[in-house]
Amino acid sequence: MKPAIILLIDDNHMDIELVLLAIAGLEVNYEVQTAHSGYEALDYLFGRAKFADRSRFPLPDIVLLDLKMPGLDGHEVLRRIKTTPGLKRLPVIIFTSSKEDIDRANCYDSGANSYVVKPLLLEELQTIMKQIETYWLDLNIGPPTMP
Amino acid sequence: MKPAIILLIDDNHMDIELVLLAIAGLEVNYEVQTAHSGYEALDYLFGRAKFADRSRFPLPDIVLLDLKMPGLDGHEVLRRIKTTPGLKRLPVIIFTSSKEDIDRANCYDSGANSYVVKPLLLEELQTIMKQIETYWLDLNIGPPTMP
Repeated sequence: MKPAIILLIDDNHMDIELVLLAIAGLEVNYEVQTAHSGYEALDYLFGRAKFADRSRFPLPDIVLLDLKMPGLDGHEVLRRIKTTPGLKRLPVIIFTSSKEDIDRANCYDSGANSYVVKPLLLEELQTIMKQIETYWLDLNIGPPTMP
Repeated sequence: MKPAIILLIDDNHMDIELVLLAIAGLEVNYEVQTAHSGYEALDYLFGRAKFADRSRFPLPDIVLLDLKMPGLDGHEVLRRIKTTPGLKRLPVIIFTSSKEDIDRANCYDSGANSYVVKPLLLEELQTIMKQIETYWLDLNIGPPTMP
């Protein structure tokens, strides 16, 4: 069986490295693809520019989306996903250091599927990356494959 | 701390009893409120009719929503929740015996937060009710309290 794909969208290279480090120490049945800005995230999801080859960059099973990014931020990426037929059914988990009411309210109102706060410690991050797999890739039944 | 509230919407009394039986054998930090039809579900969520007293019937932290119900079905309840300002931010987990592509596609397109297939065995149901707590009530950060 092909491993599931998680698309991790985050402008902070350290945060991405930390997630990759966390899952390197785990047994997981998914691969992580990365996008380092809101623009890159949309290129990936729409299969454009350097992500045009869908066999190398398949549509993900779930998206982990940072909010605070320069230029096109996570709120705008979320709105673009959730207003695009076909793409809107993709489960999007907000993955941010912000716990602010306004961010949570806006994200849920824009159609975020879930909202998880990034932990500071590697061990906590490992636990969370495992919980995300257990819930979203094992228990949850995703949308049918998109064309 | 007040226990979290799960609103379980299902027209099948046996299915509701099975969930209550499952969690009776678990240590959980939530209470289950029930609605036995789509109409009752909307009465509960809008605080109408026999659910007018919000102190007894508080807005839930998450909703578990069956799809196949006579009259107002789960798809329509989902659409009503996800198109109502304030209510739309409520996490709604579809909880159904259907795995059909069309149901999954329609539910995600209508803004379902997650889609879980009801198990047949009590032990599996216990595992799932615990996983739902671990993910949605411990890890996930819900929307800010609704007015």
